[in-house]
Amino acid sequence: MPREEHPLHRLFYPGAVAIIGASRSPHKFGHIQVANLLRMGFKGRIYPINPRADEILGLKCYPSILDVPGQVDVAVITIPAPKVPGAVRDCVEKGVRFVVIISSGFKEAGPEGEKLQEAMLKFVEGTDTRIVGPNTTGILNPEASFTTTFMPIEGPVREGPVSFIVQTGLFAGILLLHILTAERFGIAKVAGLGNKCDLSEVEVLEYLGQDEKTGVIAMYIEGVRDGRKLMEVAREVGLDKPILVLKSGRTEAGLRAALSHTGSMVGRDEVFDAACKQCGMIRVRDFEELIDLAKAFAMQPVPRGPRLGVASYSGAGCVLASDECSLQGLRLAELSKESLDRLAKALPPWARAGHPIDLEPLHEGVGPDAYGLALEVLASDPGVDAIMANIMALPEGLMWATFYAGPDDFLRYFSSARKLAPHKPIAICVGGDKEAVEAVVSALEGAGFPTYPSISRAIRALSALYAYSSIREKLARRKA
Amino acid sequence: MPREEHPLHRLFYPGAVAIIGASRSPHKFGHIQVANLLRMGFKGRIYPINPRADEILGLKCYPSILDVPGQVDVAVITIPAPKVPGAVRDCVEKGVRFVVIISSGFKEAGPEGEKLQEAMLKFVEGTDTRIVGPNTTGILNPEASFTTTFMPIEGPVREGPVSFIVQTGLFAGILLLHILTAERFGIAKVAGLGNKCDLSEVEVLEYLGQDEKTGVIAMYIEGVRDGRKLMEVAREVGLDKPILVLKSGRTEAGLRAALSHTGSMVGRDEVFDAACKQCGMIRVRDFEELIDLAKAFAMQPVPRGPRLGVASYSGAGCVLASDECSLQGLRLAELSKESLDRLAKALPPWARAGHPIDLEPLHEGVGPDAYGLALEVLASDPGVDAIMANIMALPEGLMWATFYAGPDDFLRYFSSARKLAPHKPIAICVGGDKEAVEAVVSALEGAGFPTYPSISRAIRALSALYAYSSIREKLARRKA
Repeated sequence: MPREEHPLHRLFYPGAVAIIGASRSPHKFGHIQVANLLRMGFKGRIYPINPRADEILGLKCYPSILDVPGQVDVAVITIPAPKVPGAVRDCVEKGVRFVVIISSGFKEAGPEGEKLQEAMLKFVEGTDTRIVGPNTTGILNPEASFTTTFMPIEGPVREGPVSFIVQTGLFAGILLLHILTAERFGIAKVAGLGNKCDLSEVEVLEYLGQDEKTGVIAMYIEGVRDGRKLMEVAREVGLDKPILVLKSGRTEAGLRAALSHTGSMVGRDEVFDAACKQCGMIRVRDFEELIDLAKAFAMQPVPRGPRLGVASYSGAGCVLASDECSLQGLRLAELSKESLDRLAKALPPWARAGHPIDLEPLHEGVGPDAYGLALEVLASDPGVDAIMANIMALPEGLMWATFYAGPDDFLRYFSSARKLAPHKPIAICVGGDKEAVEAVVSALEGAGFPTYPSISRAIRALSALYAYSSIREKLARRKA
Repeated sequence: MPREEHPLHRLFYPGAVAIIGASRSPHKFGHIQVANLLRMGFKGRIYPINPRADEILGLKCYPSILDVPGQVDVAVITIPAPKVPGAVRDCVEKGVRFVVIISSGFKEAGPEGEKLQEAMLKFVEGTDTRIVGPNTTGILNPEASFTTTFMPIEGPVREGPVSFIVQTGLFAGILLLHILTAERFGIAKVAGLGNKCDLSEVEVLEYLGQDEKTGVIAMYIEGVRDGRKLMEVAREVGLDKPILVLKSGRTEAGLRAALSHTGSMVGRDEVFDAACKQCGMIRVRDFEELIDLAKAFAMQPVPRGPRLGVASYSGAGCVLASDECSLQGLRLAELSKESLDRLAKALPPWARAGHPIDLEPLHEGVGPDAYGLALEVLASDPGVDAIMANIMALPEGLMWATFYAGPDDFLRYFSSARKLAPHKPIAICVGGDKEAVEAVVSALEGAGFPTYPSISRAIRALSALYAYSSIREKLARRKA
């Protein structure tokens, strides 16, 4: 179906947005939300709602959502919890499609809050109005220059294939801040669902499954309302797109904490784990791993097989990579005789050609081009499915050294390898001088090569790419 | 015994050093090594050895080590492998105590190299000369302003309690580069042992055990020559100092790679793992974890028990921390009634006091001082043994926000907590805006509070501190 017809389309691509609790005070969430839309360049209509203001940031203000002249697709609510049910009732009366409730103080806060949550749910029951949240940062869609977040966003947000579904508020904001300032991959959609009193992760997952801008889905969830439905949808979505899942509440202690966070009742972790395996979701341990893998999926293809090619600037790196390769379900590639011969020719007489490729002796033989040669060999060898390179970022004071390569050199080496074998995923571990690492990482990630600060994390990323290729096959077979 | 009497003392505190292969060309290792000593401010005598130069960097040059007038404690060799045995023979004749062989092309490079390695070993047999390496970066001792490394060092190196024993060359150099530019803890000693053809990790471990500057020992090893001896020494050293071990060659693939790296024969991994447990060494997975834990031991005390207190800026953080706490062998603390009452007084009416402490509602109640209050509660509560705080680093544009705290604020909050309970270790997870994270991390680590980019890594660090406190007890009981 055309994307406009999807029931959730207007949540991510609203034509008109009302901010209930919009404020003239630059320090209030209700002000930042309006300012964010203006700075991002939101093209739809913006209706600030505030009975005590005429104008906010140059936009006409309305005393109530009921006074807004046109149709409203999304209403964002940031007023204190006790006033929220009334505002929701008004939104229903106005025929608002989606009410994103940022405010907290609901089920997560105890019996009083639970009552408020139930009260507002009553108002939307049987209507076309859906609630997102409460207790969330809500929606971000760079393509539509649209967000409901209260974290200040300075301008347009980098577009890309990664979408997030997160069951939390502030954490999503901080995660977003990290992604926008420290990461280099782009975002398709973010849906913060908070307490999930109405709109669920399953519905958003289904939506993102058909969203052409989304290439990989990263989820943080505490509880699942309908596990069977989640598995059903995940199986379908997984045919096209990898689903990464960080689910907390894995232990007794975590379960108790989850109950007082988003009020989620969580089932036993083993059950969830088995479900993930069955429907092909890739489970991660923390946000760091979630980002590590999302980046890999955003930037690289999935490999055709498990055979890992490794080039490392040091023997220790070769040994560690060999270990990690086995521990993470990949197989160390065996290089062809032709590949070994090419390496042997470039090596000093005392060194032996082998795999993993130790760059140290190769540097002695051919200088910085050792990187280029090793990558070319791994890219050309038909016995290699994926490539992990462990490279040194050195201060410019070492530019003369036979083993020095700068950001542009690396970019050239890796781009050539990709050209030779566009189907082989590459993950890169970068170590060394802090400033040099930043420069190399920036150059490589800017060009679509994911980098990691450790060999185990780089190989974990490739192993997840491989795991997904197997999952996809399995899901397709089962469907056929 | 006085430290001067330890057989390895002169390796780390030499009075006179010869650089065999010293060079006038600023790009040669033999030049950088001399330059490093000058830049670090080495107080002993430096003898560059080069038959084709009169002077290097203002220092008189000698054609051979045999021409040097005085006693030489350490000779550093960087000439090509085939010439090394001859140089070693000269060093023995000269009565040099330690020969640090940087050059590679020995056992790790095949049968030819193995012969060279055996040849030079023959020369030192039955003499007082010891070989360090070959295939290594050798020694670094900031206290003595001494190093044999070929990585350029710009000036004095930060002193601190962390010592490294590493069985690798270039990797140690790159790791060092990372530590010097990106980390904030200080170094006591580094010993790169390369192929370990003579001086072993066991001897250095014993030395570092009695070295008053060393507080924590971090090891990277591929093979162990004498496992029984290592365990014996580790048990003794472990009574005073934690020993962190990264051992590669854990898998078949890793074993094969290790053989061609440092020529190590490695035993079965399960055996090593059991040995670590018995003698109390803490095993880590990669260099990232090695640094994570070394930093924690360098900066924090070990806790008296396993009860973890948690404060986090978001409910999701509380849930994730609760999970990690259980998964990593700690116990979530139960706060006293007094503590909960203090929190309750500061909270807005809709929120409940509990543990982990969710900072979100607390910020609503008392603003940025929520951090201070939460830390004070955790520091004062007798039911808390260790503290993990998950904090937000926000851009200065958010300074007005009730939940904003800057580097100085955090420094104040954490310093107060440490003052209240100096025996409780603190680990901090910092997330958010990239620049703000750097500023907060720099302020906190500069003051001795270890920071981590993820909750699981922060809790892993505290769990290692706790593990060591149990190990130490067990070792002491066994000895008594």
